[in-house]
Amino acid sequence: MNKISRHHETAIYSKIVDYHGFVYLAGLVANDLGKDIKGQTQEVLDQIDALLDEAGTDKTRILEAQIWLSDIKLRDGMNEVWTKWVPAGSKPVRACVQSALATPQMLVEIKVTACK
Amino acid sequence: MNKISRHHETAIYSKIVDYHGFVYLAGLVANDLGKDIKGQTQEVLDQIDALLDEAGTDKTRILEAQIWLSDIKLRDGMNEVWTKWVPAGSKPVRACVQSALATPQMLVEIKVTACK
Amino acid sequence: MNKISRHHETAIYSKIVDYHGFVYLAGLVANDLGKDIKGQTQEVLDQIDALLDEAGTDKTRILEAQIWLSDIKLRDGMNEVWTKWVPAGSKPVRACVQSALATPQMLVEIKVTACK
Repeated sequence: MNKISRHHETAIYSKIVDYHGFVYLAGLVANDLGKDIKGQTQEVLDQIDALLDEAGTDKTRILEAQIWLSDIKLRDGMNEVWTKWVPAGSKPVRACVQSALATPQMLVEIKVTACK
Repeated sequence: MNKISRHHETAIYSKIVDYHGFVYLAGLVANDLGKDIKGQTQEVLDQIDALLDEAGTDKTRILEAQIWLSDIKLRDGMNEVWTKWVPAGSKPVRACVQSALATPQMLVEIKVTACK
Repeated sequence: MNKISRHHETAIYSKIVDYHGFVYLAGLVANDLGKDIKGQTQEVLDQIDALLDEAGTDKTRILEAQIWLSDIKLRDGMNEVWTKWVPAGSKPVRACVQSALATPQMLVEIKVTACK
């Protein structure tokens, strides 16, 4: 039985689950929900960078990403920031769909799974 | 090539896929769709308990969870039941978004991946 | 550190990520968006067959599937094609929900994870 390491645990979820070389991150949203789609996307990606670093890996080792947008029309703005962030040669598989998020101010939520 | 074990297979899907120490469960909904959000959530979590047990693991070994609500306003009711169910020290990563489900009476669908 | 192999990489994503015996495919949509739900579903499943073959595996080794429909009422048409496609004894776990996709003409998007 391999050990599961969990970090940043709240009553509801953990932000990092580290198991057998896989690093699962929670679906993340921006802290400053007054920002536009580009600002919120950048904030989420910055959080992902910090959490992957804490888990001992980085954005070149992301396997898959799931992105939810509150309005699919925000896709171009999100993609502009996303595309600059993920290095060529390291693009994960991805799905991006529209779903209402926890509050109407949340424009984007991103969940990634990486490996070490 | 590691063996894949599949259980409770229908024409469309399996409820359990067991591979290489990972236990994938299908997206599950309540059987009694007359129940409110708390009742439906509890029913789904009871199903998850039973399936994880059948696969030789339990809710302290869940890696990630995906929750879909037919209306994001049902989040507080679902979270109340969820929070009591997952033990502290064992919270998985999670994403919870709004999506219409197979029938309008379905208020919540939950899909988890665990390990042994 | 195990090697990650990525194939069909664009500026945004890869269509295949191959890591440690797991084969992650991107969320895929039909190329011909003039087709109805059955036609679009068949096109996506044909793409999945080709990509799994390229990665050295096939549809009998799919672990999990996520399906998004632009309208949940399209479920029966999608399921008819899906059910014929996945062989008995090889059904993955699955979740199928409604989400608006990148363009209104896209009726279905499917993302699978397989193993070798």
